Amino acid sequence: MAYENDIFLRTVKGEKTERPPVWLMRQAGRILPQYRAIRASLSGFIELVTTPDLVAEVTIQPIDELGVDAAIIFSDILVIPEAMGLPYEMVEKKGPNFPNTIQSEADIDKLDFGSMAAEKLDYVFNGLDITKKELNDRVPLIGFSGAPFTLFCYMVEGSGSKTFSKAKKLMYQNPVAAHKLMSKLTETIIAYTKLKVKHGADVIQIFDSWAGVLDEQMYRSFCIPYLKQINDALQADGIPTIVFSKGAWFSLSDIASIGSDVIGIDWNMGTDFVRETVGQNRVVQGNMDPCVLYADHKEIERTATKMIDAFGGNHIVNLGHGVYPDTPLDGVKAFVNTVKNYKKS
Amino acid sequence: MAYENDIFLRTVKGEKTERPPVWLMRQAGRILPQYRAIRASLSGFIELVTTPDLVAEVTIQPIDELGVDAAIIFSDILVIPEAMGLPYEMVEKKGPNFPNTIQSEADIDKLDFGSMAAEKLDYVFNGLDITKKELNDRVPLIGFSGAPFTLFCYMVEGSGSKTFSKAKKLMYQNPVAAHKLMSKLTETIIAYTKLKVKHGADVIQIFDSWAGVLDEQMYRSFCIPYLKQINDALQADGIPTIVFSKGAWFSLSDIASIGSDVIGIDWNMGTDFVRETVGQNRVVQGNMDPCVLYADHKEIERTATKMIDAFGGNHIVNLGHGVYPDTPLDGVKAFVNTVKNYKKS
Repeated sequence: MAYENDIFLRTVKGEKTERPPVWLMRQAGRILPQYRAIRASLSGFIELVTTPDLVAEVTIQPIDELGVDAAIIFSDILVIPEAMGLPYEMVEKKGPNFPNTIQSEADIDKLDFGSMAAEKLDYVFNGLDITKKELNDRVPLIGFSGAPFTLFCYMVEGSGSKTFSKAKKLMYQNPVAAHKLMSKLTETIIAYTKLKVKHGADVIQIFDSWAGVLDEQMYRSFCIPYLKQINDALQADGIPTIVFSKGAWFSLSDIASIGSDVIGIDWNMGTDFVRETVGQNRVVQGNMDPCVLYADHKEIERTATKMIDAFGGNHIVNLGHGVYPDTPLDGVKAFVNTVKNYKKS
Repeated sequence: MAYENDIFLRTVKGEKTERPPVWLMRQAGRILPQYRAIRASLSGFIELVTTPDLVAEVTIQPIDELGVDAAIIFSDILVIPEAMGLPYEMVEKKGPNFPNTIQSEADIDKLDFGSMAAEKLDYVFNGLDITKKELNDRVPLIGFSGAPFTLFCYMVEGSGSKTFSKAKKLMYQNPVAAHKLMSKLTETIIAYTKLKVKHGADVIQIFDSWAGVLDEQMYRSFCIPYLKQINDALQADGIPTIVFSKGAWFSLSDIASIGSDVIGIDWNMGTDFVRETVGQNRVVQGNMDPCVLYADHKEIERTATKMIDAFGGNHIVNLGHGVYPDTPLDGVKAFVNTVKNYKKS
C-alpha cells in the first residue's frame, strides 16, 4: 500500500530514513481542543469508543492538527474483557471499573475467547473501515491491544491499582488458573488484532502497561510466552508488531528475544541501557518523559534532539507513556516539529 | 547501647553475622489483628499517628507477634509537610489529601522549615520516648523520614498519583522554585531525623517512594544532592543511614555514591543487577515481592532462601515495599521464620 507519508512504515521495517518518524501515544485525546469538544457532547468515554464515526473523527484529528507520521485507531484496551463477557464502566476522574471480576477458575471457564469474542467488536472494525477511508492514504494506521497481563490485571483487580496485588495474588495462589486466563486472553488478542489488520490497520502495537509491577522471573513465566505467541501469530501473517512493556526494564532482553519489529521504551530506560541491551540494529520506539512537554520550547527541542542523537537511528520518536491530558498543545507541536525538522549533525 | 538482639545493627555496620536480620516495612500495621483492633477504636489514622502511647503500642506489636529483628517507629511521612505549614487529611480507602498545595514560589516562601518546623512534632518524639522505654532494649529502633522528592510530590500534587505529573510540571517549569522547596525539605528532614535519634532512634531510613517517576538525569539533578546532604549530616553525627529510592533502578549507582550505610532495593531489581551495580561489600536491604507472601509456605520459604543465597551476605532481609494490608499473617510468619532459621548451605 502506498502512503503519502510512509516514513513510519519504512522505519518499522528497519529501513534507513532521512529523519525518525514521530507519533504520540494518546495523540487522539484531551490534548486536542477538537477532541474535547466531541467528548463534551457525549454521555461518556464509552459512547465515544463505541461510535465508529466519532472514532474515525478523533483518530484523524492529530494527523490534521499535529502532522504526526502515523494514526492510531482511537479505542480502549478494555473492549477485550468486555467481549469476553466482563463488561466495565468508565468512572469520570477515576478510571475503569468492573462490576464483576475474575476470582476463580470457574469464572475463567465461563469467559468467551478467541474469534468468538473478538468478532463481537463490530464497532471497532467499523471505526477502522471509516478511518481508513477518511485517512485516504495520508499516513499508516496503527491498531493496538492491551497485552494479556495488563488485561488480566484489570479483570482480576476490577479497577486501576498502584500494586495490582489482587491480580498478582491469583498468580501466586493459583498459577494454573492464571495461565488459563492468560491463554484465553492471548487467543482473543490474536483474533482481535488480525481482524483489526483485515479492517485496515498496518501495524499492531501491544501495550503491557502494568508490566512494571512484576519482576524478571514472573514476567518470564507469565508474560513473555504469551507475548511471543501473539507476536509470532501476527508476523506469520506478515503483520509488523510493536511490543511496549512499560516499566519492564528488568525483562528488556527477554522482550527483545520475542522478535517484535519494534520495541517500546519508557523514559526510565536511558538510551545507553537500551542500546546495550537490545543492540543498535533493533528498532525502538519512545521514550521522552511526557512531562518534558510542560517545559519551554527550547528545553523540549533540546531534550528531543538529544534523545534522537543518542538512539542513533532505528528509532521511532514517541513519549515513554501516553501524553498527559493537560499538556499544552504548543509544547506537543514543538516536539513534533523538532523531530520533523531534525537533521543529522 | 547493648540490645538483647543486635543482629540488625551489626549488619548495618557491615559486620558478618550468623544469619541476615529481618524486618518488614509496614510491619506495624494492618497485617496484625492487634493493630486493627486499635485502629477500629479510633476516629482515624491521624489520631493514631498523633497519640504517643498508641504509637509505642503499635510499634512494639510486631516485635512481640513476629519476632522481627528491629522495630520501626510507627508514624507517617506526611507529618513533615504538616509541620512546614501544609496540613493534610487521610481519606479512608483513598489516601492523603492536602486541602492547600504548593503552586508557586510564593507558596514555598511561606513555609516553615528546619528546626523551627521539626520541633513542632512533639507527638513523634514523645512516641519515641515511650517506645524506647517499653521496648526495653530488646531490639534497635529505626526512625524514618520521607525523602525530599517524595514529600515534594505530595505537597505539589496534593494527593497520591500514578504519574505525579503536577509535581514534575513544577520541576520542568520552575526549577528554581523546585530546588528551593527541595532545599527547605532537606533542612527540615535533617533537623527532624536528628531529633528522632535524640529520642532513641538508632538508625534512620529515608524513603523515596516515588523516585520511579523520574529518570536518571532528573534524579541526579533534583534528588541525589539533597539525599547526600541528609546522609552526610546524619553520618557526621555518627548516625547510620538507609536510603531506599523505590523504582529508581536507573539511578542505583548514583544512589550508591551517596554512601549510606544501607541501600534499600525493590523487587524489580534482580540480585545480579544489584550486586553488579553496588558491589558485594555494600549492605543492601530488601527485596522480596510482597505478593510472594500470598503464596503457600513452601513457596515463601523457597523464594526467601533463594534471595538470601543470591545476595550472599551484607544483606538485611525485607520486602521490596511495605507489606500489603491483606497479607495472611501466617505467610508473614513463615517469611520471618525462614530468615531466622537460615543456615548457609
